[in-house]
Amino acid sequence: MKRISLAHGEGGELTERLITEVFVKAFGNEAHAAYDAAVLESAGSTLAITTDSFVVKPLFFPGGNIGTLAVTGTINDLAVSGAVPLAMTAGFILEEGFPLSDLKAIVSAMASEAEKAGVAIVAGDTKVVAKGEADGVFINTAGIGQVYGGNGGKIREGDKVIVSGTVGDHGIAILSARNELGLLSDVKSDCASLHPMLSNITYGLSGVRIMRDPTRGGLATALVEICEHHRVTVELEEGAVPLKREVEGACDILGFDPLYLANEGKALFVADEKDAEQILERLHREEKGKDARIIGRVTEAVSAGRLLMRTAAGSTRRLHRLSGLILPRIC
Amino acid sequence: MKRISLAHGEGGELTERLITEVFVKAFGNEAHAAYDAAVLESAGSTLAITTDSFVVKPLFFPGGNIGTLAVTGTINDLAVSGAVPLAMTAGFILEEGFPLSDLKAIVSAMASEAEKAGVAIVAGDTKVVAKGEADGVFINTAGIGQVYGGNGGKIREGDKVIVSGTVGDHGIAILSARNELGLLSDVKSDCASLHPMLSNITYGLSGVRIMRDPTRGGLATALVEICEHHRVTVELEEGAVPLKREVEGACDILGFDPLYLANEGKALFVADEKDAEQILERLHREEKGKDARIIGRVTEAVSAGRLLMRTAAGSTRRLHRLSGLILPRIC
Repeated sequence: MKRISLAHGEGGELTERLITEVFVKAFGNEAHAAYDAAVLESAGSTLAITTDSFVVKPLFFPGGNIGTLAVTGTINDLAVSGAVPLAMTAGFILEEGFPLSDLKAIVSAMASEAEKAGVAIVAGDTKVVAKGEADGVFINTAGIGQVYGGNGGKIREGDKVIVSGTVGDHGIAILSARNELGLLSDVKSDCASLHPMLSNITYGLSGVRIMRDPTRGGLATALVEICEHHRVTVELEEGAVPLKREVEGACDILGFDPLYLANEGKALFVADEKDAEQILERLHREEKGKDARIIGRVTEAVSAGRLLMRTAAGSTRRLHRLSGLILPRIC
Repeated sequence: MKRISLAHGEGGELTERLITEVFVKAFGNEAHAAYDAAVLESAGSTLAITTDSFVVKPLFFPGGNIGTLAVTGTINDLAVSGAVPLAMTAGFILEEGFPLSDLKAIVSAMASEAEKAGVAIVAGDTKVVAKGEADGVFINTAGIGQVYGGNGGKIREGDKVIVSGTVGDHGIAILSARNELGLLSDVKSDCASLHPMLSNITYGLSGVRIMRDPTRGGLATALVEICEHHRVTVELEEGAVPLKREVEGACDILGFDPLYLANEGKALFVADEKDAEQILERLHREEKGKDARIIGRVTEAVSAGRLLMRTAAGSTRRLHRLSGLILPRIC
């Protein structure tokens, strides 16, 4: 590879290669690794730090806009890292000619999402480039949080995998808003803040191994990353993953696998069996968790790191990271 | 104003209006105000938080590249806030087709600047947009630091204003690299990290009222902001502001006022008379501070907030924020 391609931004295999070969090599750490936030010790307290850029197209879509996404995306990266968000920053790159009314609508959505989650946007920056040098507005946010989450221990055989709701909603909502589907769909993006829900859900539980938010690359890519990083095998049950009927329909027609479509308000948990039941029960009491399900389990705690799908017929097939499905500017 | 114009990104009067009318109104604080970093109390320690986006054109220029600028810019915002940088994040928006070798050169400059200042880049993000939807690469960085700086007290009459070196170098270097000057110049950008220099310079001093780094909008805009915010009058001495001969020459030919050109490695101090002498002496021992000078003083500690320039002939004229000088993508 000599030039950046759209696939480098998909959150799948090529993104991973770019991260490993360029960023990790230069910055000497896992700064750009797929995990959601970095953890830092400072003056006796543990901070989580995260950043994300948002280039979603179109800027406004069913269920939110780029501003909603920028704030909830950053809050969620902190929330799944077991942190209470303390503060956020927001940087705007604006294209000359961008309508001020659109900017106000975006900023107002940001303020409202930040307020709902009790997070202050404390620092910002604005740059303007000439017409044709950017596409409307790009937003970058960074967030810091205070880590409260205890260490849930090493992943073990028999641990369960839970997802907090239906998958693929955001991906289908964006594609449909772009009229790229060739069909009308009324699926809304699931973009929503997972804070304070996640701290409530996991309160008092000691067997929560890991939380993630499966955004770009979808549920499957997030799980493959977990499997490879922790060197475990996870087996998903075919048919167990919750799907909206419209998302399933759109995927059937278009040949997409919903496991690889982006989510913007879902959490993925790996927890011991006892806590998994607790998490599920607590999720079901929340509007955002009402469709939560146990979707699989850890079958080998020492392995090369594999994600498997067990079919209804009892056979298994291996799932890999997202590769080759080019859906640019999904977030 | 109904649409964003290039002048909204200049760091002058229109930027200030955009901040006040859109961001401050929505986020309910001074998040986007011109000051360099926000300060946050967390678990008994005081943190400084800052963010900046970088869209400089061209990406490579004499003295550095967009990566150098991104890292030093964020470090400097923390350093002038009296903080020791703890960690940074970096988000990349890449245009499809961008040469990987350029990306590697940029990232390597970032790693090297971060290492020199002892700051880790702990979290990152990469997005890719289609050809024509961005211009090469845009970088956003955020930084957090631990505030060590004591409160230097209220600005008083007789306090001195110091600049750590020549002004306008970055502005002229960028314009010259763009071939927009119609002349060849070998001025290099001054982009450089001010950490740990600033903490050494101010060590043990109790009369340092304020530090700033005069970037977009230049020295004059930074000083007008200080004057208005603290409601003081500052009088600069004409001819006291240090200038490289080539910068002065380019400004004379082109009709630019160097006081409004961007700097990327300079600090501005307001300090009591005694500490001002100390600061100057310590700066002169540093390579980056060898051209430091006292350039003016506070003449009224209670005023409407005005920046004045005293001419050699003894008359004074008022300086305002940058307005109307459109030099887009200077940082």
